[in-house]
Order: sequence, then C-alpha cells, then structure tokens
Amino acid sequence: MSTTITPEQFVCPTPAPPGDRVQLGHGSGGKLSAALLRERFLPQFTDDALAQLGDAAVVGIGRSEIAISTDSFVVSPLEFPGGNIGSLAVHGTLNDLAMAGARPLYLSAGFILEEGLPLDVLDRVIAAMAEAASAGGVRLVAGDTKVVERGKADGIFVNTTGIGVCRPDFAPAASRALPGDAVIVSGPIGRHGIAIMSAREGLGFEAEVTSDCATLYPLVERLRAALSGDVHVLRDPTRGGVASALNEIAAASGVGVLLEEDTLPVPGAVAAACEMLGLDPLYVANEGIFVAFVPPALAEDAVDAMRMHHLGRFARIIGHATDRHPGMVVLRTALGGTRIVDMLPGDQLPRIC
Amino acid sequence: MSTTITPEQFVCPTPAPPGDRVQLGHGSGGKLSAALLRERFLPQFTDDALAQLGDAAVVGIGRSEIAISTDSFVVSPLEFPGGNIGSLAVHGTLNDLAMAGARPLYLSAGFILEEGLPLDVLDRVIAAMAEAASAGGVRLVAGDTKVVERGKADGIFVNTTGIGVCRPDFAPAASRALPGDAVIVSGPIGRHGIAIMSAREGLGFEAEVTSDCATLYPLVERLRAALSGDVHVLRDPTRGGVASALNEIAAASGVGVLLEEDTLPVPGAVAAACEMLGLDPLYVANEGIFVAFVPPALAEDAVDAMRMHHLGRFARIIGHATDRHPGMVVLRTALGGTRIVDMLPGDQLPRIC
Repeated sequence: MSTTITPEQFVCPTPAPPGDRVQLGHGSGGKLSAALLRERFLPQFTDDALAQLGDAAVVGIGRSEIAISTDSFVVSPLEFPGGNIGSLAVHGTLNDLAMAGARPLYLSAGFILEEGLPLDVLDRVIAAMAEAASAGGVRLVAGDTKVVERGKADGIFVNTTGIGVCRPDFAPAASRALPGDAVIVSGPIGRHGIAIMSAREGLGFEAEVTSDCATLYPLVERLRAALSGDVHVLRDPTRGGVASALNEIAAASGVGVLLEEDTLPVPGAVAAACEMLGLDPLYVANEGIFVAFVPPALAEDAVDAMRMHHLGRFARIIGHATDRHPGMVVLRTALGGTRIVDMLPGDQLPRIC
Repeated sequence: MSTTITPEQFVCPTPAPPGDRVQLGHGSGGKLSAALLRERFLPQFTDDALAQLGDAAVVGIGRSEIAISTDSFVVSPLEFPGGNIGSLAVHGTLNDLAMAGARPLYLSAGFILEEGLPLDVLDRVIAAMAEAASAGGVRLVAGDTKVVERGKADGIFVNTTGIGVCRPDFAPAASRALPGDAVIVSGPIGRHGIAIMSAREGLGFEAEVTSDCATLYPLVERLRAALSGDVHVLRDPTRGGVASALNEIAAASGVGVLLEEDTLPVPGAVAAACEMLGLDPLYVANEGIFVAFVPPALAEDAVDAMRMHHLGRFARIIGHATDRHPGMVVLRTALGGTRIVDMLPGDQLPRIC
C-alpha cells in the first residue's frame, strides 16, 4: 500500500534557535545564569534590595531590619546520602539568611507534587523538613501544596522562603571584601555535589560521600562573636561551588582572590570521585560550608573560634584578597604555577539543589 | 518467529493502591487537599501560626506583627484572557496577605523553568509580575531561578511569598464569623476558572470571559476604613470557589451559612459556560474577589463603601451566618427549596492557579 506525501509533509518544523529558549545551563549558577538574570529579570525587577544580589535581601519592617531569602529546590534524586530535598530546602534557605548576617526566624514551604508520588516519600521529606527547621531554631509558619499531572513535574519540587532578623552591628556582604582580607573556608569542599552525583548515577565509589547539608547559623554566630562582628563577607558556595562564590565576591568587591591549592580541604573520597568523573572540586556544590573574608589580623582568631564548633572543625585559611587582579580569582598550584579560576559558562552538574 | 514467554513475564507489576500515592485531587483545595494537610503535613509541622490555616500566618518581628503567605502557581495554560502565571502569582499572594488584614510590603519570587521554554514567554511573565507588584504597591526583593530538563516541569512554575504588616485594630480571621453576620461578595463569581477553562480547551464561548485576577488590598482598605476595622472574616475564594471558602469559614467559626441563590452575582457568560461544561459556578475559582462577614448593622455601609471602588462596584450581600446548621453551608434556591453546598471531594478543574 502506498501513501501520497503532500508538500506540507516535506516542510521541516523549524525549531527556534537555542538562544531563544531556556537551556539547562541557565540554572547552573554560572555565566548563563548570570546572563539570564541580567538580561531578563533585572530590567523588569528593579528594586534596590534585589539588585544587591545577595544571598538574602535586607529590608525594613517597623524599626527592625529583616532579611528575606527564597529558593526553589529541584534536586534529583529526591533522597541522597546525608539528606533529602526537604532537609536541603530548609538548610539552604536558612543558610542564605545566615550569610546576610541575619538570625533565621520564620520559614514558608511551597510544594509542587507530581501525581503518583508515593506518599511515603512525601512523609520522609516532610519529616526531614520539620527536623531541619527545629534544628535551625525556626518556625515553619506558612505552606502551600499544588499537584500537577504525572509527567509534568519530577516527584517533588519545594520552595522555601525564610525571614530573619538582622543585627545592627553585623552586615557581611559580597561587596565588602578588602585587599588583604583572609579567605577562610569553614569545612571540606565538594561533598554535596559528589553525594548527589553518586546517588544519581548509582556509582559505587569506594568510600561513600555524604552531603554536608547542615544549618550554618550557629557556626556564623561563633564567628561573629569571636570577631565582634568584623566579618566582611560570608557566602555559602552552593551551585557553582567555591569557585563561583569567590568570583561573585571578587566582582562585587572589585578585589582579586588568590587561592593556595595545597590548603584546599578536599576530602580524599571527593578528590577520587572528581578525578573519576572529570570534575573540579572547586566547582562542586556544597550545602554545609561557607567562605568568609575577614581582616588579616583576625584570621587566626576566626579559625580558632570556628574549630570549636563541630561544623567548623576543619576550618582553614585558603587564600587572601588582593588588589593585584581585581575581579579575578587565581589559584597558586601545589607546583608553584598559577591558573585563573573562572566562572563556568554553564552546568557542571544540573539539578544539584 | 515465535518467542518464549518466561514465567517472570507473567508477573503483573503491582501498582501501589491509589491511596498510597499523590492524586490530582490532593491539589484541588477540596476534601482530599484537607485530608493531605491533616494527615501528612500537620502532624509534622506543628507551629501554632500554621495550624490556624489562615490565608496568611501572623507572627511577630520586633514590635511589629507581620503576615506571611506563600503560594506556588502551576496554572495551565501559562497565559490566559486577563492575565498570565506572573500576574496571577503576584495578585494571588498579595491577596492572601490582604485577607489577613495586612498591608502587603515585600514579595519574593522563585521560578522553576523547563528547558526549552521560549524566552519571550518568560519575558511576558516577568513583565506581568513587575506590573502587578507595582500596582499592588509592593517591592519584589528576592528571587531564585532553577531549570529542569525538558519534560520534568511544564513551562514555568512560580512560587511567590509575601510579607505584609498588620494593623493592631484589624484582624479578620476565618474563625471570627458570628451568627447573624452578613455575607458579602465583592464582585462577580466564576470568571477566573472559566477563563482558564476556555483558554485550555480552546472552547469558543459566545462572549469571552476574562480572569478577574487583580490585587484586592485597596478594596479591603476601603472596607476597613468604612467599618472602622469591624470586619469579622475576609477570604478570597480561589481554588474550590465560593463554596469551599464558605465551608472553611463555617467549619472554623462553628456557624452555618445560608446563601440566597437569586442574589449570587454570576455573569451571564459564566453561567452559560458552566451550563455547557456541567460546572457549578459556586465551585469555580476566582482571583479578584473576596467574601466578607460583617456585623449585620454595618452590612449596607460595607456594600456602599465597596461599590465606590471599581473592583467592588458589583458588591452585594449574598446571605448570612446562622446558628441553625453549624459548620454547614446551605443554599436557598430561586424556587424556594434548599440544598447543602458541601466541599467537593476532589477536582472540579485541576491546575487553575
């Protein structure tokens, strides 16, 4: 049996060029994300507080200054060694408040559920959220649930929005780094991203890497108290890792950053997994560490104070800010050479948070 | 060619019974939604402010009382007559704050984008959000964007979380209705749901119905001023429509509600579409009206004040609260009979907001 092909059937559908459509890399936290923000969102959303592009926005309510942070979580898989999307969604947003120097107080949670999701998975996610909120000392006060048809979402997406209260004497910001500042990292690098990757691909690494997913406010509070608030910058290096966080700080402050490779706390299992997967640990996501820029004279005090807290016991100085190469992050390698640590254009690992 | 069927191939995969999985009706705003909340979320999320189940949670910051509301929007299609997911996401959350008696101040927005989304659609959504925020007098101060692979979301999902400031002399709440209260509706019923339905199905109704999507705070402010704050209940009848909102109020206050069918402001085009689609306008979603319970002696003043505002020009009394049938909503039909207006078990129209 033969069929007649009409001329219409010869016409190829012309797909829009990729430049006209959302790409996965737009969600990477790298250069494409920054371009999407700069070209699409910021021309319309022109508020000064938003334009700061901090981890949280700082605004006034009555006589109080509050910090507001929002984050949607789309991590895949939903459950991974060291946590699940629920604990991640709580810690992630509370940490953004803490990075702005605020004490987290309240949290809202908005769920988008896919039809067919097993309710026992939802139960575990909810339980993890409740536990994380309790550990973080915050009240989960508002919620919302939507359901979409099978195949229109991916199990669970969660948005959390947090509200914290600021202190008048403590205002770390990405724009406040000064040449000479010591750059401190509060703990081992790369655990969250590698934990997700290993859960996703079912890779059998020799040693299991668990996510570092944790609430950082108590550790920030130790640091603040030890330095009487004299902390210039705090940032949690999530999507895009330590490299992206430092690039953002360098750009916002107009300083350079020089990192010493042999001081970077990369756990052996993370290093091994990165080598196997062809990843650079500096770009791998973290969910339970921060980088801090502090005056050089206070750097040792800062590290000592942080090491007194279990989340900061591996805190160390990994470099310093400099006026030599403003806006640029440079790594001095163990062999004595240097290389530029740029922002990634797109994804290293999509859907990491 | 014949193939051998092994015994394993006879084994039917046993799907989990529907009761163990999320169903579309869990997102309906009806009985299944209430069950999900009661059985899954509230046993873990035990905060008093959340347990009120108001449109917004009211909590303290310093010396101020603030209202917090969060909502995720999954409306399909993304654009419809009278608005798009962006304007809906802003108005919807601001209205929840207004229903708690708060003046909306700040807004956050979290986007989940599907790979392949045309950027011009995103541009229109962002522009509509900016315009709606500006019209609502609020600052959009915090944002976040995630991208998921093609087929793992549906174009755009948006979460908005709003923060408003409460007045000491104005605290409407679903639990404060009293027998005798007049029940007022601020405008025509059923426009949003029918607009979505007609856009979704490509139905050619004779007269186009546009969504009523609008910010209600200015109208609430008129009402508050006219009644010196003596407004018992405010609620915007979104998912589940006027019927579900009134059932929630009846349950929370322990009063009955008697509606007079011939007073219900159902536009002709909505009534025609509902008849064609087999829908009851009382269950159809609205995004630009509210129901108010006010003392009977103030009811006429309330209606007069609301009619001075363009969004309230069709405001009218549609019934009253009674101690006759506590917790139950009853409709007196145009023919003089009565019927119970119950909560729907599940969906009338999924993904309406």
